Amino acid sequence: MNISNEQFKQERLQAIISDRHSGAAELGRLALQALADYSQICDKSDTPGLLQDMLIFGEALKEARPSMATIVNLVDSWCEWLKNEHESDPDQFRAIALNTALDLLNQSADAINQIAHHVVDLIDEDSIVLTHSYSSTVMACFQALASKGVRAIVTESRPGDEGLRVAQKLVEYAISTEYITDAQLGLFVPLSHAILIGADSILADGSVVNKAGTKLIALAAKDAGIPLYVCTESFKRSQQNFDEVQLEEMDGSELGVPHLPHVTTRNIYFDITPPELITAWINEHGINHS
Amino acid sequence: MNISNEQFKQERLQAIISDRHSGAAELGRLALQALADYSQICDKSDTPGLLQDMLIFGEALKEARPSMATIVNLVDSWCEWLKNEHESDPDQFRAIALNTALDLLNQSADAINQIAHHVVDLIDEDSIVLTHSYSSTVMACFQALASKGVRAIVTESRPGDEGLRVAQKLVEYAISTEYITDAQLGLFVPLSHAILIGADSILADGSVVNKAGTKLIALAAKDAGIPLYVCTESFKRSQQNFDEVQLEEMDGSELGVPHLPHVTTRNIYFDITPPELITAWINEHGINHS
Repeated sequence: MNISNEQFKQERLQAIISDRHSGAAELGRLALQALADYSQICDKSDTPGLLQDMLIFGEALKEARPSMATIVNLVDSWCEWLKNEHESDPDQFRAIALNTALDLLNQSADAINQIAHHVVDLIDEDSIVLTHSYSSTVMACFQALASKGVRAIVTESRPGDEGLRVAQKLVEYAISTEYITDAQLGLFVPLSHAILIGADSILADGSVVNKAGTKLIALAAKDAGIPLYVCTESFKRSQQNFDEVQLEEMDGSELGVPHLPHVTTRNIYFDITPPELITAWINEHGINHS
Repeated sequence: MNISNEQFKQERLQAIISDRHSGAAELGRLALQALADYSQICDKSDTPGLLQDMLIFGEALKEARPSMATIVNLVDSWCEWLKNEHESDPDQFRAIALNTALDLLNQSADAINQIAHHVVDLIDEDSIVLTHSYSSTVMACFQALASKGVRAIVTESRPGDEGLRVAQKLVEYAISTEYITDAQLGLFVPLSHAILIGADSILADGSVVNKAGTKLIALAAKDAGIPLYVCTESFKRSQQNFDEVQLEEMDGSELGVPHLPHVTTRNIYFDITPPELITAWINEHGINHS
């Protein structure tokens, strides 16, 4: 076992495991970037050894964040490609591994642009659009919507407060924003014209795994007759059913509550919104109504 | 105008206006206590002047926290009583004013005990009971439920974090507690057996004005088939309709967000839950199912 190979892999894995700020699409890209970088530094001298080592690293990356279908799908696509590659020269093989990763990263970036185009067609001028937590896909949509005069309602998104990062991005796009606590969603969902959310995974039945609070938004949206659009590249589709999903729970200390006897602090990051609460799923191929 | 009288009134008014920790019942009692204390120190030497001055102070107290029907109702009851009082000796009148306030405060304390008795009959042994924000009435219910082996789920209740005060009280009652962010309600409402909330006001149609987030709980409870019980003394009944209610908005700086251009921080403390989402209203007289 080469220590420097192992160190590289552990550092990248830990960075992804402890990342509380990147959305699912970004984490998928970080995982693929880690594989691409590893393909260049891995010291195996023969192609079969190189491939096997990269596949092992790929499996570890997939297990790092089990709620993130993007990591699974991007890593699997990359691994499948390389398993079917017949190049035997290790240096040529490294170059192919890198280029395959770059192709997949470009596809992902294109997908987000296409989703933003679809969303611009869907949202009326001067609409008030509500979002929750940070999604790089939804931010691309807001950037594209800025010229249509939309305003935004942004939730705090406790405990990570990703809403602050959303608001900072919206400042760059000069979009007027109202910033609310998650608890005020019952008041502000009915004041919006549309809701845009990203997702960590789309399950087999269309259920959406996303930041905790999304299901509350969906219930409030259904109650008030506000359309809820889920914006995700197709790489976020998972084959899992809702009863197979492992929802990640993070350290309760993130809530900043003092220790009290008999009191357990819970910090589940994601919830699952069933398909009947979703108006449409938007991916790079178009808009799929429920 | 006597400055010391005015100073006394302004100090008590400001204490009630800026109070972010007391529930509605407690605020009602604080308002009544302020009137009782004022009746003792007010320097008017004739009974009609004394009465008039106290009625003016009563009106100011009612306007201090417009979402709180308890203040309105307790103050109105006290004022009505005194307006119908025929005692002309100012010192005797002061004594009656004080005793009337003490009677009303005792009635309120009795009401809470009776509500707790009704709730104990309603909740099964070993149930998991979810609550939101701080209500002295709901805390009396939990104290009475402790011997039935109930466990609690408590929300953070941003931005005031009243959930921490709830959890500290539950520690005193030795009730096992799970403490969650408001955003996790979509995950934890379906894991509870019953929901107990207090209220700031019950409107004419049975709608409930309570801490922001209550409507989200009610939607999630309806969706999951979990009963939602509203526990309030009858002094919290308001004659207002839901479209007449002025929901208090506090300073946005309570959210602790840095200033950003184009970004407005909203901090509405209360929301309104419609009667069709409520399983039953419990007051000192009994349980009223919807």
